[in-house]
Amino acid sequence: MEFIDNGVCAPLGFKANGVHCGIRKNKTKLDLGIIVADVPCVAAAVYTQNKVVGAPILVTRENIKDGVARAIICNSGNANTCNADGVEKANMMCGLLADALGISPKDVVVASTGVIGQTMPIEPIASGMDELVAGLSANGSDKMAVAIMTTDTFKKEYALQFVCGEAVVKIGAIAKGSGMIHPNMATMLSFVTTDANISREMLDKALRAAVNETINMVSVDGDTSTNDTMCVMASCLAKNAKITAEGESYNVFALALNTILTAIAKDLARDGEGATKLMICKVSGAKTEKDARAIAKSVITSNLLKCAMFASDANWGRILCAIGYADAQFDINGVGVDLVSQVGRIPVCRNGSGVAFAEETATQILSEKEIVIDVTLTDGDQNAVAYGCDLTYNYIKINADYRT
Amino acid sequence: MEFIDNGVCAPLGFKANGVHCGIRKNKTKLDLGIIVADVPCVAAAVYTQNKVVGAPILVTRENIKDGVARAIICNSGNANTCNADGVEKANMMCGLLADALGISPKDVVVASTGVIGQTMPIEPIASGMDELVAGLSANGSDKMAVAIMTTDTFKKEYALQFVCGEAVVKIGAIAKGSGMIHPNMATMLSFVTTDANISREMLDKALRAAVNETINMVSVDGDTSTNDTMCVMASCLAKNAKITAEGESYNVFALALNTILTAIAKDLARDGEGATKLMICKVSGAKTEKDARAIAKSVITSNLLKCAMFASDANWGRILCAIGYADAQFDINGVGVDLVSQVGRIPVCRNGSGVAFAEETATQILSEKEIVIDVTLTDGDQNAVAYGCDLTYNYIKINADYRT
Repeated sequence: MEFIDNGVCAPLGFKANGVHCGIRKNKTKLDLGIIVADVPCVAAAVYTQNKVVGAPILVTRENIKDGVARAIICNSGNANTCNADGVEKANMMCGLLADALGISPKDVVVASTGVIGQTMPIEPIASGMDELVAGLSANGSDKMAVAIMTTDTFKKEYALQFVCGEAVVKIGAIAKGSGMIHPNMATMLSFVTTDANISREMLDKALRAAVNETINMVSVDGDTSTNDTMCVMASCLAKNAKITAEGESYNVFALALNTILTAIAKDLARDGEGATKLMICKVSGAKTEKDARAIAKSVITSNLLKCAMFASDANWGRILCAIGYADAQFDINGVGVDLVSQVGRIPVCRNGSGVAFAEETATQILSEKEIVIDVTLTDGDQNAVAYGCDLTYNYIKINADYRT
Repeated sequence: MEFIDNGVCAPLGFKANGVHCGIRKNKTKLDLGIIVADVPCVAAAVYTQNKVVGAPILVTRENIKDGVARAIICNSGNANTCNADGVEKANMMCGLLADALGISPKDVVVASTGVIGQTMPIEPIASGMDELVAGLSANGSDKMAVAIMTTDTFKKEYALQFVCGEAVVKIGAIAKGSGMIHPNMATMLSFVTTDANISREMLDKALRAAVNETINMVSVDGDTSTNDTMCVMASCLAKNAKITAEGESYNVFALALNTILTAIAKDLARDGEGATKLMICKVSGAKTEKDARAIAKSVITSNLLKCAMFASDANWGRILCAIGYADAQFDINGVGVDLVSQVGRIPVCRNGSGVAFAEETATQILSEKEIVIDVTLTDGDQNAVAYGCDLTYNYIKINADYRT
C-alpha cells in the first residue's frame, strides 16, 4: 500500500475541476468545484447528526437513495442552510450540472459550506457552469480540493494505491474543514473516489467502519456542523474480482480506506482554526471501545487542555479532569498518562496521582508540532485514538471576524 | 425579599475571616479562609460529578454525613487533587482548624481550589491558623470571599433578607469560579449560610432544587472541575417555626435560595475567564424540561457562538447549529430566535429560517454587557435558562499562562 499523487483523480474514471464563480467576493479564491465520473458509480454517504441539516444534504440523500451517483458539485462561501428556499436552490445546482453534462440530476451529489442562514445566490453558479465543465481534467483534483476550502490553510488531498486480489486498486480523497469541526458520523465535507470493483453494500459497510475510527474521532471546537457530508464513489473500473462480501479483498479495501481517512482526519485536526499543533490522544486498556472513545474525545476537546498545549505547558491535571468528566466507566486509581512527541516520552501520572518529572523535558516534548497524550487504563483491552488541536488567539480572531 | 450587605456573615450566628498564609507566592493575595458558626449547624452539600474527585470532597462527604457542620476551611492556589497524600492533607486541614476552635474535626467542611496534581503544603496552613482564628469577625465575609478566588476578577458575595412566617430570615452566599466552569450538581466552590430554622431534609431538598436551576445552568468552558463543592449551613437561629415539610414557609425559603444562587450563577458566567459579556440563553416552548435545558446549555457552550458574541456579530446560524446538536427533541421548523439586550430586541430567525434584519441594530444590541438569546420552540410549555459568556483572547492568555 503506498500514497500516490492526483487525489480524487487518481482512481480510474474520474475528472475534476474548480473555478471562481462569484459566490465569494475574493476573486482569487476558487468557490465552486466538481468531480465527474466517466461511468455511473456505486455510491455511499454519511452525514451530520445535527438536527438542523443543510438543504444540500436533504437533496443528496434523496439523489443517492438508489446507490448510484455520477457527479459531485460543491461550493464554498455559503452553507445553504436555514434558508426557506434551500432545497429548491440545491436542486437547481444539481440541475445546472446535469444539463451541462447531459446526465440525470438524480445522479448528482450536492454540498455547500460557508455561512449559515444567508440566501444562496444561484446566478454565479449558472454563469460559471460552462467554464467549470469545459475545464474538467484528470489533473483537476487540486482545483476541486481548493474550491471547497473555507478557513482551511492547506488543502486535504490524498491518494492511495494497493493490490486487491490480482488487481491494482486506487482510492482518492479530499476534504475541507477547519472550524465547526466535531463530526458525528461524517466530517465537514469529504469526497472519496475509488476504482475498486465493489458492491454498494460492502462500500457502505467499509465507509461506516472507517469513518467511525477516523473522521468521527476528530474535534476542533466541539461544534457539530449542519453540513457534514462524506461521500464515496466507486467507478468499479479496476480489474479486481467484485467485492460482494467480507473476506480478504474486503479487508484490504477497508484497511486502505481507513488509512486514507486517518490521513484526512489528522489533517483536519492539524489545520483546526488557529491551531499550531496536532494533539492525538491514545487510550488503551479500557473496558469497552465506547469508554475508550469517550475518554479520548473528552481529552482532545477540553478547552483548558488545548490552551495548555498552545503554551507547551505540561498541566496534566487538566488531562485527568477531562478523563474524569468523560461519559465512561473506569478505575481512577489505574490511570496513567505519558506525554509523547518525536523528541521523547515523559510519564506525568501513574495510578491516578502525579509522578515527579522534569518540567524542562516536558516543555521540550510539548514544543513539537505533533503531541501524543498516551492514556493507559487497567480496566480491559479496548483502545481508541482521537485527533484534536490546541486553542489559540487565532481561533478567536478567525471566529470573531468570520462573517463581518 | 431584599438584598442586604455582609455576605455569609449576614445570617445570625456566623463569623468569617481570610488571610495570606503562603500557599500562594503573591503576598498581597489572601489564600486561606474560614467560616465559623456560633452553634452546630444543619448542613447539606452537593459536589462535582467528575469521576476524578478532589481529596477535600472525599473528606467533606465523610464529615457531613451526620448532617451537622460547624466550620468551613478553604484555600486557593492548590486543588489538593490527584495527590497520593491528598486525603491525609485534607484531614490535617480539618484537624488544625478544629484544634484552634476547640471543636471536633468531624464538624469541619474542607475545600481547596487551584492547580491539580501538586503536593499540598501543610506548613503555611499550620502557621497561619492563629492569625486566621484570632481575626474571626462578623464583618469577615469579604475576606473569606477574596481568599477563595483564583482567576476571578471580582468577588461573588450576596445576602438576602425575607420574611418567613412571623420571622425575618437571612441567607448569605459566596462563591468562586472563573475557569473550569461547567458545573454538574454544584459550582466550583460556593458556601451558603442561613439562620433559617429548617430540617436537614428540607435544607437538602431546597439546595438541590435551587442548584439545578441556577448553578448547574452555568458554563464558562465546558470543563467540569474536579473540586466543585456547594455547601449550605443553617444556624437555625432565626425565630421562624421550624421548616420540616413542604408548604408556604418552605416555598419562601426555596425561592430565596433560588434568588441568591441565580445572582451567584450570573456572576460566575459574567466573570468567566477572559469574558467581556454575560450571555443568557432562555428557551421556552420545549416538550420537556430536559430538552429545554439541553438546548439552552448547548447554545451558551458553543465556542463558535462565544467568539461571535465577543465580536458583537449577529451570526445567528451558529445558534441554530448549536440548537441542532443539542441532545434534545424538537421541531426544527418551529424554531424562533431573538437577540435581546437593554437597548432592544431583534428577531433573526422564524420557523427555522432566517428573517431579514438590520445588521446595525443587531450590532448595537450585541455590544451591550448582558445579552439574552431568546429561543422559542413550538413543542410544549417547558422552559430553561442557561448562563455563559463570550470567548476572548484573554481566555487563551489566562489558560496558557495559568500554571507557568
